[in-house]
Amino acid sequence: MPEFDRIQCTALHSKIMTAEQAAELIPEGANVGMSGFTGSGSPNAVPQALANRIEKLYEQGKSFKIDLWTGASTAPEIDGALAKVNGIHTRLPYQSDPIGRKRINEGSMQYIDMHLSHVAQYVWFGFFGKLDVAVIEVAGILPDGSLIPSTSVGNNKTWLDQADLVILEVNEYAPLALAGMHDIYYGTQLPPHRVPIPLTKTSDRIGEQYLRCDPNKVIAIVPTNKSDRNSAFKAPDDSSKRIAGHLIEFFKHEVKLGRLPKDLLPLQSGVGNIANAVLAGLNDGPFENLTSFTEVLQDGMLAMLRSGKLANASCTALSLSPEGEHEFMKNIDFYRDKVVLRPQEISNHPELIRRLGVIAMNAMIEADIYGNVNSTHVNGSAIMNGIGGSGDFARNAYLSIFMANSIAKNGDVSCIVPSVSHVDHTEHDVQIIVTDQGLADLRGLSPKERARSIIANCVHPDYKPLLQDYYERALFQSVGKHTPTILSEALSWHDRAQRTGSMKP
Amino acid sequence: MPEFDRIQCTALHSKIMTAEQAAELIPEGANVGMSGFTGSGSPNAVPQALANRIEKLYEQGKSFKIDLWTGASTAPEIDGALAKVNGIHTRLPYQSDPIGRKRINEGSMQYIDMHLSHVAQYVWFGFFGKLDVAVIEVAGILPDGSLIPSTSVGNNKTWLDQADLVILEVNEYAPLALAGMHDIYYGTQLPPHRVPIPLTKTSDRIGEQYLRCDPNKVIAIVPTNKSDRNSAFKAPDDSSKRIAGHLIEFFKHEVKLGRLPKDLLPLQSGVGNIANAVLAGLNDGPFENLTSFTEVLQDGMLAMLRSGKLANASCTALSLSPEGEHEFMKNIDFYRDKVVLRPQEISNHPELIRRLGVIAMNAMIEADIYGNVNSTHVNGSAIMNGIGGSGDFARNAYLSIFMANSIAKNGDVSCIVPSVSHVDHTEHDVQIIVTDQGLADLRGLSPKERARSIIANCVHPDYKPLLQDYYERALFQSVGKHTPTILSEALSWHDRAQRTGSMKP
Ligand SMILES: CC(C)(COP(=O)(O)OP(=O)(O)OC[C@H]1O[C@@H](n2cnc3c(N)ncnc32)[C@H](O)[C@@H]1OP(=O)(O)O)[C@@H](O)C(=O)NCCC(=O)NCCS
Ligand SMILES: CC(C)(COP(=O)(O)OP(=O)(O)OC[C@H]1O[C@@H](n2cnc3c(N)ncnc32)[C@H](O)[C@@H]1OP(=O)(O)O)[C@@H](O)C(=O)NCCC(=O)NCCS
Repeated sequence: MPEFDRIQCTALHSKIMTAEQAAELIPEGANVGMSGFTGSGSPNAVPQALANRIEKLYEQGKSFKIDLWTGASTAPEIDGALAKVNGIHTRLPYQSDPIGRKRINEGSMQYIDMHLSHVAQYVWFGFFGKLDVAVIEVAGILPDGSLIPSTSVGNNKTWLDQADLVILEVNEYAPLALAGMHDIYYGTQLPPHRVPIPLTKTSDRIGEQYLRCDPNKVIAIVPTNKSDRNSAFKAPDDSSKRIAGHLIEFFKHEVKLGRLPKDLLPLQSGVGNIANAVLAGLNDGPFENLTSFTEVLQDGMLAMLRSGKLANASCTALSLSPEGEHEFMKNIDFYRDKVVLRPQEISNHPELIRRLGVIAMNAMIEADIYGNVNSTHVNGSAIMNGIGGSGDFARNAYLSIFMANSIAKNGDVSCIVPSVSHVDHTEHDVQIIVTDQGLADLRGLSPKERARSIIANCVHPDYKPLLQDYYERALFQSVGKHTPTILSEALSWHDRAQRTGSMKP
Repeated sequence: MPEFDRIQCTALHSKIMTAEQAAELIPEGANVGMSGFTGSGSPNAVPQALANRIEKLYEQGKSFKIDLWTGASTAPEIDGALAKVNGIHTRLPYQSDPIGRKRINEGSMQYIDMHLSHVAQYVWFGFFGKLDVAVIEVAGILPDGSLIPSTSVGNNKTWLDQADLVILEVNEYAPLALAGMHDIYYGTQLPPHRVPIPLTKTSDRIGEQYLRCDPNKVIAIVPTNKSDRNSAFKAPDDSSKRIAGHLIEFFKHEVKLGRLPKDLLPLQSGVGNIANAVLAGLNDGPFENLTSFTEVLQDGMLAMLRSGKLANASCTALSLSPEGEHEFMKNIDFYRDKVVLRPQEISNHPELIRRLGVIAMNAMIEADIYGNVNSTHVNGSAIMNGIGGSGDFARNAYLSIFMANSIAKNGDVSCIVPSVSHVDHTEHDVQIIVTDQGLADLRGLSPKERARSIIANCVHPDYKPLLQDYYERALFQSVGKHTPTILSEALSWHDRAQRTGSMKP
C-alpha cells in the first residue's frame, strides 16, 4: 500500500507502481544514475527487480546490460544483485561489493575508477554521454514535486537534473525528520560561468533543503520500507589503536609548535577500522571544539558529537551501524543541528577542501619508501575498491595523512614496499605515513630522506632488514640517485607474493 | 653607480651596496627564497657573488651551503652557479638547470619536487621551517618601500612577507613601464580564516600593483642592469606540428559536439617546442577570442595577442626569447592592457583552475598504456626537471591533456610504455594523450579500453607490435584483469634501455 502522506504531489499519484513495473521501464544499454553512498540512501527494490528481469532475460538467451553510475559504493541490492546477473557493462565511480569486484577482476565488467569530485562535473560536461534514467531513493515528495532526500545526497542532484527519466523509491523507513539536515547547493555552473562557492565554515548552509525535480520526468514511483544496509561497528583492534595513538601524539606536537590551531582543523576521515580507532582516540584526546568536513558520518563521530568534542560535521552520507542508526534517529533533533548533508561535488570540492584547510586521513593498501601511495590495486592488476574521495582530500588538504597496518595477510605482505604496484597518490601528495610501527613525517624531505624516515618508522620488523638492504643497494646501483631504484627488483616483492603467496624470500 | 630614480625610498639609500657585500650577509645554512620563474625576474648578481664566496670558502677547506627556494626554474646565474660550487643543500620546488640536475642525480643535492601551488602555503604553514633571507629582483622601490615587480612574480610576495631579512636587486634594465601589469593578491589567509578568491575571469584584477615590503627588513640593495636569460625561440619541428594538428582537430570536434564553447576555455600551456607548435596552430586556427590562464607568457602568445586571436593572458612570468622581449617592450602599452602577472599561488590555484575550467596542455616524458603519466623521471631514478605546475592544472582542468613525441633518443626510447617508471599524474587525472602519431581520448574508458585506444592511436610503429604483444599477454596472464599487468615485465623496457641504450629487444 503506497503511503500517500509521503507523496504529496498528487499529479504523481498515477505513477505509483511496483518495483517490477518500474524496472521494466529501464531500457537496455541505458546509462542509469542511482542514488547511494555506502549503504545509505540507495534504492533497493528497483535494482533488485531489474536484476531479476535481467536474470530471466539471460535464461531466455538474451543479453541486457546497463551502465551504472552512483555516488560511491552502494548496498548489495544494487551492486551485488546487478553484478551477480552480469547486468552491468560499465560501473563508475566507486564500488566495494565482493561480487562486483570479482566481475571487474575477471574482466567481465568495465570499471572507471575516478575522483568523486570529478563525477558530477564530467556528466555535466557531457564526457560520459547522456544520462538516461535516474533511480533515486527519497524520504518524501512535496506538493510541487521537490524531494526530501534520504540518508545520503551523493550525486542525486546531478542525476535528477541530467536524466531524461526519473524513477523514485519513496522509503517510508527514512524519517521525515531528516528534512532540514540536507543542504543542496544549486549555484554550480558550467565554465566559463562558474563563481566562488560561498562556504567558509564546515557548518555553513549555502543551498536548499530539498532536491528539485521536474515532475514531468518522473515515470515511476515505488514505495518501499527498508533500513540502510550498513555493516556493524567493529571495536578497533590493537594495531588500529596504535596508529591512532601515533596520530594523536603527532597532532599534539603540531599544536605545540604552532603548526595547527588548538582545535585542529576540519577532519576528513575514511571509513573502516583504523578511521574508527582515530575517532575514538580523538574522543578521548585533549582537543575540543573539533569540526569535520568529510564524506561519511560514522559511528565514531556520533560519539564525538554527543561528548561535545566535535562541534559539527559536514558530509554527504550517513554510514552508521544499526546501533548508530538507532541512536541517530532517537536524537535526530540534536543531530540535525550539528550535521549537514551535502552533494558530493561540494563535500569533496577541491576549492572547499583547500579553503577550509582539511586534515585528510585515509587508509591505503600500500606505500613505497618514497611516499607514493596505492589505494586501489592488489599486485598492480586487481582492483580492491577504488580511489573514492581520497585524492580530492589528499591533494588539497592542509595535511595529507595515509594510514595502514604495516603488514597484511597475516604477515605475508608488507604494506611498505620498494615501489608501489599502482600509484593513486604521488610523492607530491603524501605528507604523513602512519602504521602501527610509527609515523613518518615527510614534509620538507627529499626522496632519499623520505626513504630513511619511512624505513626507520613505519616498516614491520620482519621486512625492515629486507627494505633497508634494497634501499642501500639501490643507492649504490641506481643510475639516478634522486630516487634510487633497481628496476628489475622494484616490483619483485609483489611478483613473489603473487607466485608464492608471500613477499618473504 | 646606483640609479637613485629607481630607489625612491630614501631611508633605504644607505643599504645600497655591491653584490659581494650583500652576499656576505647570507648566513651559512640559511633558507633563502629567491625570485625567478624560468629565466625571468631572477636576481643574478647576488647569487653569482654568493657562488664566488662559497667557492673561495671551499678552497679554504670550509663548507657552506644554503637551502634554495624559488618560484620555479631560474637563470644559470642562480641554479647553475650555486650548483657548480655545490652550494645548495636542498632545492625546491622546480629546477631545469643541467648542472643542478647533475648534482641531484649524482646524489650531492637534495631536491624536493612539488606542486607549484603548494609552495607558498607550505611555507606559511611552517612546514619547511623559517625563511631566513629573501633575494628579490625588482624594477624599482617606491617612497614607502613598496616594490615594482619585474618580469616575474612567482613566490616573491611570500618570500618578502616570510623572510627575516630582505636583499633587493634593483634591475635598471626592467622597464618601469611594467608597473600596472602585476596583480598581487593580498587576500590569502591561513586556515581556518580563508575566504573565496574573488576571481571569475582570466582578466580580473583582484590585488595590488606593487609588492609590499617592510623597509626595516631590507639589509641590502644591489643595483643591476641585465636582461632576462631566456632561450631563443625554436621554430616548431614536424613532430610538434603534427601533435598541434591532432589537438586542433580535437578542439574543433569538441566544439561541434557542444562540449566546448566556440571560444574554447582558458588555455594553459607548458613551455617548449610542442607548446609553441600548439600556440602557432591556434593562431592559424578557427578559434577567436581565446583567453589564457597559465604560468608563463611565451612568444607564441605574443603573436596571438597581436593577431587578436587571444583576448588576454594571465600568468606569473614572462618567458620570452630575445626577439619576443624586444617586441614586448616596444609595445608594452598594448600588452599591459592584455597581460596580468600574478603570484604563482594564484596562477596555479586549484580553486581558480577548476572555476575557470582551464584546458591544460602539458608535455610529458612518457605515458603508459593505462594513461598514467611520468613528467619527471628518466628510468624511474633520475630527475629531468620536476612536476612544476602540471599537476595543479591537470587535476583541476576542464580537460587534462598530455603531449609527447611518440619516441625519444632517436627512436631508442618509446614514450608509450607498459608501465611508466614514475607516476606524476595518475590514470585518474589524464584525459587526453597526444603524440605525433595521433590522439587518444580516454574519457569514459576503463583501463583496458584505454590501453586499446592508446596503443591504436599514440604509439610509434616501431613499438606498436611490441606493446600490443605485451598487452595481449598481460590480458591472458594477469591475475587481476582490471589493469592487466605482468609484474616481471612492467619495467623491463626501462631496464633494457638502461642496460643497452635502447628499449628495443
Ligand atoms: C585502502 C582500503 C582498501 C583499506 O581498507 P580497510 O578496510 O581500511 O583495511 P583492511 O586492512 O581491512 O584491508 C582491506 C582488504 O585489503 C587487504 N590488504 C590490505 N593491504 C594490502 C596489501 N598491501 N596487499 C594486499 N592486500 C592488502 C586486506 O587484507 C583486506 O583484504 P580482505 O578483505 O580480503 O581481508 C580502503 O580504505 C579503500 O578502499 N580506500 C580507497 C578509498 C578511500 O580512501 N576512501 C576514503 C574516503 S575518501
Ligand atoms: C616533460 C618535459 C621534460 C618535456 O620537455 P620538452 O622540452 O617539452 O621535450 P623534449 O622532447 O625536448 O625532451 C626533453 C628531454 O627529455 C628527454 N626525453 C623525452 N622523453 C623521454 C623518455 N621517454 N625517456 C627518456 N628521456 C626522454 C629528451 O630526449 C630530452 O633530453 P635531452 O635534452 O637530453 O635531449 C618537460 O615538459 C617538463 O619538465 N615537464 C614537467 C613540468 C611541466 O609540465 N611544466 C609545464 C607547465 S606547468
